[in-house]
Amino acid sequence: MDTRAYLRERLPQVERALEAALPPAEAPPGVLHAAMRHVLFPGGKRLRPALALAAAEAVGAPPERALPAAVAVELVHTYSLIHDDLPCMDDDDERRGRPSVHVAFDEATAVLAGDALLTAAFQVLVDGADAESAPWRLAAARDLARAAGSHGLVGGQIDDLRFDPADRDPAHIESVHARKSAALIAASIVGGAHLGGADADSIERLRRCGEAVGVAFQIADDVLDAGEDDLCSSVRALGVDAARERAETLLAAALAELAEFGERAEPLRGLVRFAVRRRE
Amino acid sequence: MDTRAYLRERLPQVERALEAALPPAEAPPGVLHAAMRHVLFPGGKRLRPALALAAAEAVGAPPERALPAAVAVELVHTYSLIHDDLPCMDDDDERRGRPSVHVAFDEATAVLAGDALLTAAFQVLVDGADAESAPWRLAAARDLARAAGSHGLVGGQIDDLRFDPADRDPAHIESVHARKSAALIAASIVGGAHLGGADADSIERLRRCGEAVGVAFQIADDVLDAGEDDLCSSVRALGVDAARERAETLLAAALAELAEFGERAEPLRGLVRFAVRRRE
Repeated sequence: MDTRAYLRERLPQVERALEAALPPAEAPPGVLHAAMRHVLFPGGKRLRPALALAAAEAVGAPPERALPAAVAVELVHTYSLIHDDLPCMDDDDERRGRPSVHVAFDEATAVLAGDALLTAAFQVLVDGADAESAPWRLAAARDLARAAGSHGLVGGQIDDLRFDPADRDPAHIESVHARKSAALIAASIVGGAHLGGADADSIERLRRCGEAVGVAFQIADDVLDAGEDDLCSSVRALGVDAARERAETLLAAALAELAEFGERAEPLRGLVRFAVRRRE
Repeated sequence: MDTRAYLRERLPQVERALEAALPPAEAPPGVLHAAMRHVLFPGGKRLRPALALAAAEAVGAPPERALPAAVAVELVHTYSLIHDDLPCMDDDDERRGRPSVHVAFDEATAVLAGDALLTAAFQVLVDGADAESAPWRLAAARDLARAAGSHGLVGGQIDDLRFDPADRDPAHIESVHARKSAALIAASIVGGAHLGGADADSIERLRRCGEAVGVAFQIADDVLDAGEDDLCSSVRALGVDAARERAETLLAAALAELAEFGERAEPLRGLVRFAVRRRE
């Protein structure tokens, strides 16, 4: 499976769905709508939406059924970047080579744009359901809320902000990563599977797969960023070699959860490997 | 109908449901969970949850069926207060006589506590549905997302922040109020009605009722606050007498929408009058 070819084939659908999910930048209040789009277009790798689509395929559904989950996880990811960049948080003036939202606009607009993106994520996930998909949509929204909330992404962010520089406990660092980034990656896979109508057993396998690949993804980030001064880093706790080894162990565990999904899980396997072994 | 007696009877249920919806303040990350509770307990009048319960009664359902909507709207209201108080927004150091969250904790924690409350609102609304209630829950979540998003509460807040001091156009001021506060009040009533299994015609009547009472509620606020320096105020645009008159016109319109709901809408009628004619 050529993962780059898979991404080239699927991502235009995701871009169109993201575009359709937000009001045009000209719609009033224009400054808010422009700020909501600032980090979203052009975006990053769209890894989370791709995982959602591939998870739907892995459970035998057409990938486009997962689009509401794909859009929702990308909107949550984008809101979290905007709020993380705020002066009171990580105080980052740049994001992907462009000014952060609070620099391009102002702080109040950045807070509100994040709030509106988080709200839009749930709107996309609950809007337009039919009788068959209603319970799947609810399950996807429930799992997204858990992943994004105080026990997930937001909880990981506060523990990262308050991280004790003396702390080199790999288990604690992994717990921050499990919440700050792995939870949303797992919710991407699980959300796609829910919208694909997966049974409970498949959901649990995919959840374990997603949690493992999510932590491995963050370790891969730490390895790529090695030398930067991130305190809560697996590389800082383990050293580069042991961090790489831990990522490979988690990748193997993630792939093992996919063993029984057969040929149709090939795109998901490819993305899982790509997430952990990417070079940028 | 004695509205204060109705509130005394119903609100303990709401308090218990709010308490159950959030992790205990001791659950890690404790600082985040404590901050999420800071403005919520003790709260304000709990008008929005009461409207949700009374709306369910108005469409013939037991009020407790509306509890997920009642909790969700109060969590959204609370998140919006925490973010509105931030230094980059209204910069209010106090809320209901106590330090704001960013004063009692810090700015980052206030941003994150708001984010987590908004997320928890949707979690409560989508969690625990059964086959009968699944479409009602989805409809309530969709309408809450619309009310809270860039065309609703968040959009009203950005227009309020950027309000032109020279602007005394009552229609523009009412449009800000319709989004910043009326949308969530309407979503409270509509959310309760959805969870009560209301038909489409009843939902539309209750939506119009909610929008009218929501704007009237905000005008009542402006009249109570007259003399304070809020720029986007109906009193500033219209004068006290005309503002009071406009509130009464809207109240009459809201009550007219309830005309066909009969005796079981008495609690809702009482709350609607209370929202507009309260003295505090």
